[in-house]
Formats: sequence, structure tokens, C-alpha cells
Amino acid sequence: MLEKLKEDVYRANLRLTEYNLVILTWGNVSGIDRDRGLVVIKPSGVDYGKMTPADMVVLNLEGEKVEGELNPSSDTPTHLELYRRFPGIGGIAHTHSSFAVGFAQAGKDIRPYGTTHADFAFGPVPCTRDLSPEEIRTDYELNTGKVIAECFEERGMDYNAVPAVLVHSHGPFTWGADPFAAAKNSLILEEVAKMAYLTESLGAEKEASKAIQKKHYMRKHGPDAYYGQK
Amino acid sequence: MLEKLKEDVYRANLRLTEYNLVILTWGNVSGIDRDRGLVVIKPSGVDYGKMTPADMVVLNLEGEKVEGELNPSSDTPTHLELYRRFPGIGGIAHTHSSFAVGFAQAGKDIRPYGTTHADFAFGPVPCTRDLSPEEIRTDYELNTGKVIAECFEERGMDYNAVPAVLVHSHGPFTWGADPFAAAKNSLILEEVAKMAYLTESLGAEKEASKAIQKKHYMRKHGPDAYYGQK
Amino acid sequence: MLEKLKEDVYRANLRLTEYNLVILTWGNVSGIDRDRGLVVIKPSGVDYGKMTPADMVVLNLEGEKVEGELNPSSDTPTHLELYRRFPGIGGIAHTHSSFAVGFAQAGKDIRPYGTTHADFAFGPVPCTRDLSPEEIRTDYELNTGKVIAECFEERGMDYNAVPAVLVHSHGPFTWGADPFAAAKNSLILEEVAKMAYLTESLGAEKEASKAIQKKHYMRKHGPDAYYGQK
Amino acid sequence: MLEKLKEDVYRANLRLTEYNLVILTWGNVSGIDRDRGLVVIKPSGVDYGKMTPADMVVLNLEGEKVEGELNPSSDTPTHLELYRRFPGIGGIAHTHSSFAVGFAQAGKDIRPYGTTHADFAFGPVPCTRDLSPEEIRTDYELNTGKVIAECFEERGMDYNAVPAVLVHSHGPFTWGADPFAAAKNSLILEEVAKMAYLTESLGAEKEASKAIQKKHYMRKHGPDAYYGQK
Repeated sequence: MLEKLKEDVYRANLRLTEYNLVILTWGNVSGIDRDRGLVVIKPSGVDYGKMTPADMVVLNLEGEKVEGELNPSSDTPTHLELYRRFPGIGGIAHTHSSFAVGFAQAGKDIRPYGTTHADFAFGPVPCTRDLSPEEIRTDYELNTGKVIAECFEERGMDYNAVPAVLVHSHGPFTWGADPFAAAKNSLILEEVAKMAYLTESLGAEKEASKAIQKKHYMRKHGPDAYYGQK
Repeated sequence: MLEKLKEDVYRANLRLTEYNLVILTWGNVSGIDRDRGLVVIKPSGVDYGKMTPADMVVLNLEGEKVEGELNPSSDTPTHLELYRRFPGIGGIAHTHSSFAVGFAQAGKDIRPYGTTHADFAFGPVPCTRDLSPEEIRTDYELNTGKVIAECFEERGMDYNAVPAVLVHSHGPFTWGADPFAAAKNSLILEEVAKMAYLTESLGAEKEASKAIQKKHYMRKHGPDAYYGQK
Repeated sequence: MLEKLKEDVYRANLRLTEYNLVILTWGNVSGIDRDRGLVVIKPSGVDYGKMTPADMVVLNLEGEKVEGELNPSSDTPTHLELYRRFPGIGGIAHTHSSFAVGFAQAGKDIRPYGTTHADFAFGPVPCTRDLSPEEIRTDYELNTGKVIAECFEERGMDYNAVPAVLVHSHGPFTWGADPFAAAKNSLILEEVAKMAYLTESLGAEKEASKAIQKKHYMRKHGPDAYYGQK
Repeated sequence: MLEKLKEDVYRANLRLTEYNLVILTWGNVSGIDRDRGLVVIKPSGVDYGKMTPADMVVLNLEGEKVEGELNPSSDTPTHLELYRRFPGIGGIAHTHSSFAVGFAQAGKDIRPYGTTHADFAFGPVPCTRDLSPEEIRTDYELNTGKVIAECFEERGMDYNAVPAVLVHSHGPFTWGADPFAAAKNSLILEEVAKMAYLTESLGAEKEASKAIQKKHYMRKHGPDAYYGQK
């Protein structure tokens, strides 16, 4: 079942290695079929080079395995919570890319210092609060998803306008319309994180003007966008 | 029309990926036929791997499309303004390379700390002022070009001696005699930016002496240059 | 003799180059056959590209060569001491990877700032004390091993839970169940060191909570681990 | 003439690109035949990919061209002065590798923070004084060589024990027994410079103990060296 989505999720996972965002078996990408309410995700701890589309695991939104021999990614409950809370997304990616993790470990937002950021996200990429010891002990991965959703709600942020988050002391999750868009956003986030790191290292912490942030975001994502082809 | 220039612009765009200066569809290179007053530029948001020379877009200096199926780069009005204001240049390149963007986002010139810089440019690579909200709302890309030209005029700088600029909160534009020279200057600028970053990180901000700057610039670019072959 | 172990040690040494952890002839990996009490290690100063499995050197735990034409790695006495003191390990790797060396030269532990670290090690990766001039003059490489073991003992650390150390003013040693695990741990250590460097450069030095450290370490390494496949 | 040396110099130049130390036409390697007093060097500003061994230029130690169609590297007078002043060397390499240039532009020695450095050089890699405006205006490249030799003399340093220098505001020169050793030393210098940069960025500036520096240098280079094979 879902052969096309399994193929897409498989190939989007391989993109993480092509983009140099992961080593070994790190990272994972998933995709959802909203009509059927089924999620496809990478199996846990399997080599990218040995994986096949048939190894992808299918689950429903309650986390019950529907198809697949292997255990799904240990981060699966985080993905499922994000699909439940962010109904407009079709794919999710998770990496431990270096610069994004640097900000996550420092507990700092990636602030919008320029147009590269604004082409990607409207406003800072937020860093969540720390999970409490209780949230960690029970249903840790589910609670990671809840803390991400809480972060967007409490700060009044739109997950469509900011397709990425940093989980405190952990690393980035990104999302998009499909698994490929989610993986691509992981790549862009790492570039933006590197640029923000260099900017702060050069002693500057002044964000780009609201006007230029809005201009760049809207020319690429707004109703009157004119970047790219029709 | 302009088959040779389209081929050159196409190949100079591919250089940006070979030089590791761009990811995805980022960046663009253009070239101009000064006799006909026609500019050739990369289409907007098209994959480097799928592009062909026939996809390049031809426009006149007023920005009217003369040939091509696709939309030109969204940065086209910036390129056109630079061709109008800098009559000696034959090609322009734009990237979001990391270290150059770091300086642009920090709003800092790349200062001439050594001979690598002086082999490339005579004096600092300037960072422009921020565009005003008004300049951003209307004709943003055109105004980006105007602010670049204004920067060179107000600081009494020669665009022939400094073939690069950092647009504040945005990133670098470089130029040269033709599209290949423009792309090459984007590569050199990124190297020079990285070296300046390392120099400042090591706690030093003393520029190279005027004497050695002049020596290196002139041995490569002056009337008595002796670097390279005849 | 030990043809399988020689093949494994040979291939695990090549991994160091595939992981981009070493240049030239730098680095070395060894493995041990605990039943026979024999260690197999890379020869000293031989090109990775020219080496064959037959070039691997076999020694007993007293350091006497049992088989092999070539001199063993000059770091061999360090490996042997670690095999004597850490009876649970089956392989050891040594590199001069940049970020790990940066911490070793600064004489600083790599502190556990996030889950990437906690997936790998439970607690800081310790930096040893400096060797004394006496320890350096006589049996230097043996004393390097002794100082590593002393570091774990004095700090009450478990070498199974922290499969890596930084030798002061020198660089990292890592270990694992076999030569491949040891080499893999060198790769992970370098990633973790880079992330810790970025975190500290961003001005933060707050470790991840004990709760999340324990959670991540135990979900991957504890008796109830659920990362990966059975 | 000197076909073997031309082949060696050609191949040692290509190593600079294989080692990722140079871009475009940057960098140069030379070699000397001490019996004939003839130096072979890369031509100026020629693409690495288009160069052939026959393009190498042969000069005597007075700088007169003996064979070759092309202009020699513009840095040739620096190389010749080093061959005259450092009679024990057989090859010289010059790059603009990023971290070494960072230290050169900051006017700082690369200090011996660890064993990677001590395996390579005994003591700091020195940074020369600035050339005076007079030294720059007349015989600039010759004076660059003179300032390097002066630096070693005034600081009582042995060019055999420290096979590298940083020219202030410029970059590194390295040397060795032959062109390949010189190129290899450029690679090691860049690694050592990167490690020193990371060490200082981590807030530490304490050099490795004299005892460990001496131990590592002597085990690799001294009369009783035991690193590598006979």
C-alpha cells in the first residue's frame, strides 16, 4: 500500500545524505497521506545505503503500525503529534545538522538577520523550552511534539510561515507540503543557521528590517509571489 | 539570437554550483552584449541540473523581454541597473555564499587584511546602507541596484578596482569583463571573506599596509602587471 | 593467523579516511582477540592507499610482535594499556580530528550540551591531565595509556558509558566492541565536538538536563533500549 | 633537461589542488637540482588542469630563465632567495590556504598547542615582520624572501626544524627535502593552523609542555626517530 508515498519518503530520506546533513543512520523523514490518515516513515537505525522503499514503515495517526517489518524511527511519536497539530503539512524531516544543533544546544532562536532567512521563514526560527523531567520520563517523543506545538501557539507563530523549529538541547525539525519539501527545508535551515552564526560571531545582532523581511517572504510565498515560474 | 552569450551565461551559472557557492536554485549570473544593448540572464527558480542554454532569458536594458519562455531571475532589475550605471562591466553574478552573507548581515565592509584581498580588489569591499521601507515597497530590486551604485559614488570608489559589493542584510554581487569573470569573482570574494572572518576572529583588525595593497593590486591589474602570461 | 581480524582492522582503518577524520598516514585503529590475548594494529606511517590486510601487525598484550613484517603504530603501547585496563573493549581508534583536537589542546572536556552527545556518551568526554616530563621521557606511549585509565578511575567514570577520551595537548582516543565500532565512535566524537564548539561560541555553556541525557543514553544503550532494530 | 624534476614539480603542484589548499591558479611549488644549481617552478597564472610537465620553467639561482616558453610564477624571486639562504632544502610550496592566511593577516605566530604541531615543527611557526614601503616598491618578491630568512636568523630558529613561515599580511611558505615534501608540509600547516584557531577560539592559549613538544618532534625527526618504517 502507499507505494508512491513510500518511494517518496525513501528518496527524501536519501536527500538528507546528499545534502550532507546526516552521518551514519542519523535523521529521518516522513510523509502523510491525509485522505487515509496514514503516515510513512524511515525505520529506526537502518543504514541509508541498505534501505529500500519497502523498508518504510506505515502507521496510522494513533501510532499503530499498519504495514512494515521493521521498527519505525524512535522519533515517530514526535512526527505524529506534528501531523495532528499542524494539519497543513505533508512531510517532516529531522536532522542533527551542526549549526542548527549549535543554536538548539545554546537554547537560542535563529534570528532573521537577512534575506536568505526571510526567503525561507517569516520571523525567527524558534527554540522551544526545555522538556521537564516528567515530560522526559513518560512519552518523551510525544511530549517533544507537544512542546513544539505549544511553542508555536504561545508565541502566536504560524507553522506555515515558519517551517522549522529547534528543540531545546536537541536539534531541528522541519516540515513542508511533502517529504521532499521537508528535506529541502532542513538544508535551507542549516544554511541560514550557519549565516546567523557567522553574523553573530562578527559582533552584530541587528535583525533585518521588517520591511525587507516581509518583501522577501512575500515575493516567494505570498499570494503575489513572483519568484520562480508559474 | 545571442547563442554564444546564452551558452556563456548558462555555463557561468553552472560554475556557481561547481564552486560550491550556491545550493538548490539560489544565485544567478548574467551577461551583456553592449553593442546590441541586450542582457542574458538565468531564469527564476530553475534547477541548475535541468537548465539548458535555451532557457536563458534575453531582455533589453529597459527590462523588456526580447526572447525566452521563462521568467527571468527576480533579481533582474538589480542586474540591469548595474549594467546602466557601470558601463565597463560585461557580466554580473549574485550568490548567497556563507561568509560574504555573514558580513552583509552584520552590515560590515570586508576590509583589506592581506594580499589575497589586494590581488582581487583595491580597498575594502563595501557594504551598502539599508534600503528604506519606501525603497523596499516599490521597485525593490531596481532600488537595490541604485543603492549599490550610490554606495560606490558616495564613497568615491571605482567599480573597476573593486568588482564586488555586499548589499546590507542581503548578500554579495560581483561583476567582471564577462559572465565567467563575474562568477570567478564570486568565488574569490567568498575566499577573501572567509580569511577576513578568521583574521577578525583571531582578534586582529589591522589592515594590510597601503604599500603592499597597491603592489599586489598593480602587479595583477595595473598597466605594468606581470602576473600571468601575455 | 587472525585473518578475519586483520581484514577487519584493515577496513576499520580505511574508514578513518572515508569519514574524513585523517590526512596522510595519520591515525590508527586496532582490534583484539580476547581469547588468544592478541592485538592487531596498523603499521606505523604507511599510506592508507597502499596498505593491505597482510600489513597489519599482530602483538601479544606484552607488546611482543607475533606476526608481521612492519613496525606497528608508534601509539601501540597506548592501545595495549587500554586493552589491559578496559577489559570490555574490542577495538580502539586514534585520530587527530580537528574539533576534538581543539578541545584537547585547550585542555577542556567536551561537555554534554545536547542529545547528540547523550546518544553517544553518558556524561562529559573527559580531557586527561598533562603528562609529567618524567612520564614523557620514559615509556611515553605506555604512560599515555596509564593517564587515560587514571582519568577514568579518579573521576569515577565508566569506560563503557563514555567510549572516548581527549589526551591533553594531543587528541582523541575512542573505543568500542570491535574495530568498526571504535572508528565509528571517532566520527561521532568529532561531530559532537563540533557541536559543542558552536554551542560555546554562541555564548552558552549550560549542559543538557540530567533527565534528557539519561533518556537519550538509555533509549539507545540501556537494557530497555528501543532505538534501532532487534 | 631535468625531465624528472619537471615531472615531480608538476605533480607536486597538482597535489595543492588535491589537498584542497588552492583555488583557480593560486599557489605554486618549485624544486631544485642542487648539483646543477637549477630551479624548476610552475608558470605564472596557468590553470592546474591545463598545465603539463613541459610547461614548468627552469631558472638558475640568479633568476635567469634557462628553459621554458612561459613566464615563471611571479613569486619566483622569493623561492630563489629561500634556496640561496636555506641550503638544505629541495622544494618550496606557497599557498593561500585559509587558516594559515588568517594567522598571517592577524600578524600572529602559529603557536605549538599540541602534538600535531610538534610532529611537524619544533617551536612556533613564525610570522614575519611587515615589509617596509621601500622593500615593497623595489624587488618586492626578493625582499619577501629576505624578510623570511631574516625572521629565522633574528629569532635563532632552524629552518630544518620549522619547515614553514607566515609572511605578514600575505600567507604561508613551506619547504622540505623535495617538491612533494614541501607540498605535504603546506597541507600539515593548514591542519595545524586550523587546530590552533579552534584552540584559541575555545579561550585557551597555553602551549604544550616543552617535554611533549620535544618528545613528539624527536620521535618523528630526531636521530632516534621510531615513527614509520626504516
